[in-house]
Amino acid sequence: MKINNDKTIFWNYDKNCIEFVEQTLLPVQYNIIECDRVERLAKAIKRLEVRGAPALGVAGAFGIALSCLEHDDCNMEAFFKLVSDDAKYLKSTRPTAVNLSWGITRVLDKIKSSGTLKEARETALMEAEAVAREDEAMCHSIGNYGAEYLPDKCTVLTHCNAGALACYTWGTALGVIRSAVKAGKDVSVISCETRPLNQGSRLTAWELSRDNIPVKTITDSTAAFLMKKGEIDAVIVGADRITPDAVFNKIGTYMHAVCARYHNIPFYVAAPYSTFDATGKESDIIIEERDREELAFCGNKQLMPKSVPAINYAFDPTPMELVTAIFTEKGVLKPPFTKDFPIA
Amino acid sequence: MKINNDKTIFWNYDKNCIEFVEQTLLPVQYNIIECDRVERLAKAIKRLEVRGAPALGVAGAFGIALSCLEHDDCNMEAFFKLVSDDAKYLKSTRPTAVNLSWGITRVLDKIKSSGTLKEARETALMEAEAVAREDEAMCHSIGNYGAEYLPDKCTVLTHCNAGALACYTWGTALGVIRSAVKAGKDVSVISCETRPLNQGSRLTAWELSRDNIPVKTITDSTAAFLMKKGEIDAVIVGADRITPDAVFNKIGTYMHAVCARYHNIPFYVAAPYSTFDATGKESDIIIEERDREELAFCGNKQLMPKSVPAINYAFDPTPMELVTAIFTEKGVLKPPFTKDFPIA
Repeated sequence: MKINNDKTIFWNYDKNCIEFVEQTLLPVQYNIIECDRVERLAKAIKRLEVRGAPALGVAGAFGIALSCLEHDDCNMEAFFKLVSDDAKYLKSTRPTAVNLSWGITRVLDKIKSSGTLKEARETALMEAEAVAREDEAMCHSIGNYGAEYLPDKCTVLTHCNAGALACYTWGTALGVIRSAVKAGKDVSVISCETRPLNQGSRLTAWELSRDNIPVKTITDSTAAFLMKKGEIDAVIVGADRITPDAVFNKIGTYMHAVCARYHNIPFYVAAPYSTFDATGKESDIIIEERDREELAFCGNKQLMPKSVPAINYAFDPTPMELVTAIFTEKGVLKPPFTKDFPIA
Repeated sequence: MKINNDKTIFWNYDKNCIEFVEQTLLPVQYNIIECDRVERLAKAIKRLEVRGAPALGVAGAFGIALSCLEHDDCNMEAFFKLVSDDAKYLKSTRPTAVNLSWGITRVLDKIKSSGTLKEARETALMEAEAVAREDEAMCHSIGNYGAEYLPDKCTVLTHCNAGALACYTWGTALGVIRSAVKAGKDVSVISCETRPLNQGSRLTAWELSRDNIPVKTITDSTAAFLMKKGEIDAVIVGADRITPDAVFNKIGTYMHAVCARYHNIPFYVAAPYSTFDATGKESDIIIEERDREELAFCGNKQLMPKSVPAINYAFDPTPMELVTAIFTEKGVLKPPFTKDFPIA
């Protein structure tokens, strides 16, 4: 089966600018934005036109390459000051996104010893490309390890979007599915819509159908019933952070894990080493609570009375005892996960 | 605490017409519609302006009373023919709604022996009022039985709308909550939004906040995380049908039951005897699958790519082993439920 090798964010060498898929318009429109200003990239990150932890790392890296191009009329001292200001500005667009900051710092550190503007520019772009290519290799490696665990013919349930759109390409959880399909397995996907922002129905369904991988969408609360009917062979999700005692991922992941255990269905997590937080503890992690408006409105439709509050956690922790295996780029982790817990 | 005694659908004796709450406009607008034509009532039932099993029984009953008023220029034979045609027409608006058909037939049977138009009209209206009052008494009885089971201070999770808006007044699952509050208990409610039609955020949140009962809305998939955090003391839901082996209710109910069991939280069902189907079996019941558009769009917002199908079950079955108790108007049923299973 032909699988598209679409890149979510990449460098256009003809026009010397970043291009990225505008994700807020999906699934209605598939637009590639040409972005030749740091200001525009910052807006894209703020507006979630580009989102997903690995993709933000790549965005930050290319962002510094772009910054190096923008400042061409100054001496080296002024240049480093201006690029460093851009770096701070880009980091501030999503202050809690670890990967964004990581990608920015990695490229920034690399150009420190450059003697000329030209050298700095070339170094920045080469390093940004390295970040992107490493992300791609990482996803393929996770995919290959995970694909082994899927039966030759199976239906896999996933939640949110741990896909190509969240990475440079291929994806983590969806990367496992793509690798299995590439290896000739017959995989169908059930994509939970993932309220309140519907990344599952908007993004996961879009990118899988674009690759002709069979996908159907359900409401999040339908998952347990399909498990009961024997229609789900495995659950695969991504992760935002993994501590030795819990996997933090999009709200709803925990519910799927509890229901998977109840129905004796394997529950898999696909995530790179950069997600692991060896010193973290479930009880210490503060879960982001987001705006009530995400539940109160959908498009132009008001879904709640004005006076009623919402509880809108962005993530939930799934305790390790509910996890069957974790697919990383360096191999498969199994219980007890504490034994050889990765150091990011 | 003052609890409103709003009626969802009732007879206006000044204007000789039905009035009902237009539920599709909630929670944005609270409109009471005056309805003096069977045609308008049929439209209201079709458009879900009036919905909920017990409320449809009352609507059907008042519908026949309205039909008797509309046909005033004919002999008795023609009159019965016209009213009987209206009955068939009203039943056809939601052919699978057992209560609608039941309410219509009950009033129709009652007027059969009437000798004059006047007698038929008065009999029809009296019988329709009886249906409504019995529904009210039934809900209060369910409420009183169930309220005993709630701690003096507690947070209760509910799904969909088994409330006043689904009945003549008071509600079944929400009736239990109202009765507990009326008895002086300190009850807070977590209302799951209930995708895809959001009856939980639109209707349950609206009617509880109107009664000043503390209510917060969550996405359906947040329920398990709140259970894990120890913030849910009990789950209460309504039911569409109860067979000796399963409770059929809005999709998502089963997920809540599985998660409640995992966290040792009691899972209660509130439903009248009319819901019980003593000869039914879980495996024989065909679950209604509804249109993909319910998931594909919300207001003007497209949530899915055009080419992707949805699986949209309206209900799911919760096996009896996950149910802690069932509150009925005649008492509380406990495991094993088969022992004194109600005959509807």
